[in-house]
Amino acid sequence: MTANVRTRVAIVGAGPAGLFLSHLLGIAGIERVVIDARSRAEIETTIRAGILEQGTVEVLTESGASARARTVGHKHDGVEFGFAGERHRIDFADLVGRSVWLYPQHEVLTDLIAVLTAAGQDLRFGVRAVRVEDAASDRPRVIAADAEGAELVIEADFVVGADGSRSVVREAVTGSPTGGYFREYPFAWFGVLCEAPPSSAELIYSNSANGFALISQRSDTVQRMYFQCDPDADPTAYSEDELWHELQSRVPGTTLHQGPIFQRDVLRFRSFVAHELLRGRVALIGDAAHTVPPTGAKGMNLAIADVMILERALRALLNENDSRLVEAFPETALHRIWKAQHFSWWMTSMLHVAPETSEFDRHRQLGELRTVIESEAGRRFVAEAYTGWPLEGLAG
Amino acid sequence: MTANVRTRVAIVGAGPAGLFLSHLLGIAGIERVVIDARSRAEIETTIRAGILEQGTVEVLTESGASARARTVGHKHDGVEFGFAGERHRIDFADLVGRSVWLYPQHEVLTDLIAVLTAAGQDLRFGVRAVRVEDAASDRPRVIAADAEGAELVIEADFVVGADGSRSVVREAVTGSPTGGYFREYPFAWFGVLCEAPPSSAELIYSNSANGFALISQRSDTVQRMYFQCDPDADPTAYSEDELWHELQSRVPGTTLHQGPIFQRDVLRFRSFVAHELLRGRVALIGDAAHTVPPTGAKGMNLAIADVMILERALRALLNENDSRLVEAFPETALHRIWKAQHFSWWMTSMLHVAPETSEFDRHRQLGELRTVIESEAGRRFVAEAYTGWPLEGLAG
Repeated sequence: MTANVRTRVAIVGAGPAGLFLSHLLGIAGIERVVIDARSRAEIETTIRAGILEQGTVEVLTESGASARARTVGHKHDGVEFGFAGERHRIDFADLVGRSVWLYPQHEVLTDLIAVLTAAGQDLRFGVRAVRVEDAASDRPRVIAADAEGAELVIEADFVVGADGSRSVVREAVTGSPTGGYFREYPFAWFGVLCEAPPSSAELIYSNSANGFALISQRSDTVQRMYFQCDPDADPTAYSEDELWHELQSRVPGTTLHQGPIFQRDVLRFRSFVAHELLRGRVALIGDAAHTVPPTGAKGMNLAIADVMILERALRALLNENDSRLVEAFPETALHRIWKAQHFSWWMTSMLHVAPETSEFDRHRQLGELRTVIESEAGRRFVAEAYTGWPLEGLAG
Repeated sequence: MTANVRTRVAIVGAGPAGLFLSHLLGIAGIERVVIDARSRAEIETTIRAGILEQGTVEVLTESGASARARTVGHKHDGVEFGFAGERHRIDFADLVGRSVWLYPQHEVLTDLIAVLTAAGQDLRFGVRAVRVEDAASDRPRVIAADAEGAELVIEADFVVGADGSRSVVREAVTGSPTGGYFREYPFAWFGVLCEAPPSSAELIYSNSANGFALISQRSDTVQRMYFQCDPDADPTAYSEDELWHELQSRVPGTTLHQGPIFQRDVLRFRSFVAHELLRGRVALIGDAAHTVPPTGAKGMNLAIADVMILERALRALLNENDSRLVEAFPETALHRIWKAQHFSWWMTSMLHVAPETSEFDRHRQLGELRTVIESEAGRRFVAEAYTGWPLEGLAG
């Protein structure tokens, strides 16, 4: 049995990109349907990191998408870089007059789902996209299946693939499920969640002879920390003592507050940009379009920037029949995407110690960190990227 | 037959490092002998590039080493970066209030030899160092040979290896002729000298899909240009037309003024830092201590910075019997050396296209160039490094 739905914009994926796009299109009075293979509970409870750029917080709060980012989230006016046994602060507020907010992604999603549900959004969980047909036509279709296997066909004026790194929509745009530019890394992050008070008020990015560690926070009672590991590391192979030893040895000068570790996972790194972001009336945004290693905290922020660009283009197309901004969408979005890809790669390469690193490159890396930290311009260059390049000109 | 000489400082090598050190020690009233395997004519006529940092020009002119750097040299208030068919200026004067001077190395050497000769410096050309003995003692010795093969033994309070990248002194310090940290590059520069007017008032560093090119100058009638080539390229294998085609294709938007090419060479790239810079009373400076790829124009400037640090230390040791600054020399010098090594690697990797570069990294590189050029902080970060970090605190 097949159900047919007709809408203006079919959005595949209820992550930050898909839900925020739906929210903005709703404000513009454009009808849309959002589907996601996952359940609402799964989306709202899968704990994901979240450092929000100031511009991201501004558009989330000013558009009414998330009132809690500013109130429940933690404002951070800087980060610390550790290397060679020293600790140096990059003072965002002082350098660029901007900040970031620690506000986990699943909280953003919870906020968005509540707002959209209250507004009557057609939001279908447990519905899996199978493929997109007729991408190049004026009536692209999403073929999907619900949890019982019943087929759902969504015919739309425009289809948006916001369905993450294993995007189903991508093939209709790039011609292959994986088509893109990519880079692998010879390390991963071993992440732990623990019950303990914060060990630091701000994030510590620490380069040590033993490898990288990131000391992050979740709340007053739950902390998130990561240390560089082999991509094939077995999360269960470490005792809690060994995990604390790995973490502590990489942040000399800071005594970590220990507590029960209740979650552990290995996050593999990948840089990816799809070869194409647009085909006819199908576009890719968020992780469907690009993946960044987590070191620069750019993932969700880049998704939100994609949305800002595409939403304005869709308004011009659907309300004024002007396709120019949609046609320009890839170039406009890729400008920021490749800057963010570079920043994510740079933070990763500057702070991690690759297994095959030569002694020359290890010394050079410390020379790089010193050059950046000793220079106001260097620190400001990092602060600009970390707090987010301007989104201005996009919100009009 | 063996001749014996007794002096306070034996300096091996009459390049910028050795000659400038001799000049400063002369001002301090410290007796020294300089030897070099080459003839004076060879040193003065081997054409070498020269971009002098503002601090280098200041110490050369203020110490009386070279009055001509400021008068005959060309002051450059910026450089241009080319990429993606665009051209962007990095305005040193505006960004950091500093400049660089185009003044070739052999002109600096000619100035220094004239000043030292006039001052009665014991400066021996055609004398080749063979080895250094008793480095760890209070009476290190340089064993040398003159052009006729006669042995010369220079006994000194201190020996300085300023004898370039194939340093003979290095073994006495590091324990091996090559002992150091190094990095190879999968490309080289094809350099040409031609008779033509300048194609640009300032240097153009151009990243193109065909590879890197540097458009530089020598004088109003002679120009120096380089293009990225294979390290094994045969300088004789190109016709003049082919050379101009290689150069022109890498600087879209600029029409190169062509003229007879009268010199061509392939410059291989290497990054190198000796494992040790000091053993007992023998120190390494300049290219004997480190080699940088030429992209950042740091070679001669780093040699001059080494001299500033070591000369102050030798004054303390020889005039006040205080060895602390000599003992601190490696750490003090290496701070700047590794920053300069990073900057030279960074300029090289940001501007060249390595043969094995992935499409991801090619896009990322353009994202990097865009991030730097679009940011005042990014441009200033480059300008600070290119015009030279402060030498202050060293000239006291």
